[in-house]
Amino acid sequence: MSAAQEQSRRIHVVGIGAGSPGHLTAQAAAAIREVDVVLVADKGERVDELRALREAILREVCADGRLPEVVAVPDPRRGPDAERDATGYAQAVRDWHAARTDAYVRVIEELPEDAVVGFLVWGDPAFYDSTIRVVDAIGERLPTEVTVVPGISAFQALAAEHQVVLHRVGEPVHVTTGRRLVEQWRAARAAGVALGTVVVMLDGHLACQDLVGSDPDLTIRWGAYVGMPQQELRAGRLADVIDEIVALRAELRAQHGWVMDVYTLS
Amino acid sequence: MSAAQEQSRRIHVVGIGAGSPGHLTAQAAAAIREVDVVLVADKGERVDELRALREAILREVCADGRLPEVVAVPDPRRGPDAERDATGYAQAVRDWHAARTDAYVRVIEELPEDAVVGFLVWGDPAFYDSTIRVVDAIGERLPTEVTVVPGISAFQALAAEHQVVLHRVGEPVHVTTGRRLVEQWRAARAAGVALGTVVVMLDGHLACQDLVGSDPDLTIRWGAYVGMPQQELRAGRLADVIDEIVALRAELRAQHGWVMDVYTLS
Ligand SMILES: C[S@@+](CC[C@H](N)C(=O)[O-])C[C@H]1O[C@@H](n2cnc3c(N)ncnc32)[C@H](O)[C@@H]1O
Ligand SMILES: C[S@@+](CC[C@H](N)C(=O)[O-])C[C@H]1O[C@@H](n2cnc3c(N)ncnc32)[C@H](O)[C@@H]1O
Repeated sequence: MSAAQEQSRRIHVVGIGAGSPGHLTAQAAAAIREVDVVLVADKGERVDELRALREAILREVCADGRLPEVVAVPDPRRGPDAERDATGYAQAVRDWHAARTDAYVRVIEELPEDAVVGFLVWGDPAFYDSTIRVVDAIGERLPTEVTVVPGISAFQALAAEHQVVLHRVGEPVHVTTGRRLVEQWRAARAAGVALGTVVVMLDGHLACQDLVGSDPDLTIRWGAYVGMPQQELRAGRLADVIDEIVALRAELRAQHGWVMDVYTLS
Repeated sequence: MSAAQEQSRRIHVVGIGAGSPGHLTAQAAAAIREVDVVLVADKGERVDELRALREAILREVCADGRLPEVVAVPDPRRGPDAERDATGYAQAVRDWHAARTDAYVRVIEELPEDAVVGFLVWGDPAFYDSTIRVVDAIGERLPTEVTVVPGISAFQALAAEHQVVLHRVGEPVHVTTGRRLVEQWRAARAAGVALGTVVVMLDGHLACQDLVGSDPDLTIRWGAYVGMPQQELRAGRLADVIDEIVALRAELRAQHGWVMDVYTLS
């Protein structure tokens, strides 16, 4: 059948919040109720927590109806080896993305044409998640009709639990990753550029430790498993509380087998 | 009665999303159902839209129960005159804040001690909203027990409607206001600091117009009344679409009497 005759595949990309079923929006619940098949990447880290949250949400949202089928899509082995030269690396990343898109397209093509496909995304699909890029790539291979539903992101849950406003009056909020934090902070500082309150996600090493020397008086507001039963919060002057946070993070990680944390610096 | 004997006043600060009742989270709905009295600042701009959204949400959330009472708290005339010298201005701002806190405290003290007070906040209380600061100030005058519930912010609704991820791979997201945009952009550019995708809120003048000369190839993703029935979206190369957006914004404002818009630059 040619693409022109093919019916568009309906795809819902749904932000489900950052760990608490209470984060789910009415719009997300309605979208999930329309979904026939939830596609799930079959891969690494935090899969268990994502699965547990997903299942809690599906049970709650679809309490009086049929549950969508959950189909695991094998994720191609994360091939690219960062040690390779830049050209080789970029090519390997492209190959890997193409293989991943192939895997999704194959699964979707097996489904009835009118099946509504759902991707349930942790937090907000707009922040540090690749689902929308994957769905864009699928759309280059199949006719699709996409809906995106925003979700509560981890840093919003963090701000709410600490009961703080993220911006200082009239100032910006800068959301970044552990990998970029120190370099950006120093460059901005050197240039007199105000980043405002800095939100740090994806930081496995609490990179803010490197700022204690230059900026001991920063306020850190930190949270692990925010919105989840294991939630831990700490706040204070960076130089005063960072050692406790580093130790607590290591302890939690040992205790639960994984840890997910986020923090702000202001 | 002394503060020590006084019962803590329960206060829920609830993010209700940026214009669509569908943005409401389960946690927000549960918090609203506990509220006895919703306090509303009796003031300026967008009051009608906020009121309409608030009423739609209260009706929906409390469909099978009693509606909380809505009490308007007179907002002291926005006193401070920006033309005054800096010291006079800062003092006037402090006086105004104190008067506002007084007004809330007076209203709360009239309520039964066990009444749960609610503030329904447009979008997410963590972004460009003063409710949490007001509640902090109330807490310095009365014993309080505060809960904050995050909400979908306007820029998340914008990203979802445009079906985009906010960050470019590995890059930051910088949320700022129209007033700071151009100055920050130029300072960051001059210093080689990557702000990443820039989200602009509170921009009555589409300040990005001033960047067309230096950065015509930026992509702008713009939305007005995002999530609301009047929603308008535009996206494209800044130099190509900015004139249309400026004209459309003026037209919408004339047509509806008000406009609320938000955009990203990347
Ligand atoms: C791959 S990113 C996904 C972000 C997600 N899309 C969002 O909007 O929250 C994962 C990062 O989000 C943060 N995170 C997500 N959920 C969290 C939670 N419940 N508590 C603390 N941090 C969380 C952590 O910084 C983690 O490294
Ligand atoms: C005082 S701020 C409040 C922001 C709110 N707390 C939030 O998280 O969205 C108001 C600004 O939010 C943006 N905004 C709020 N709702 C919007 C909507 N539905 N569509 C477009 N912009 C919106 C506009 O930039 C507006 O100037």
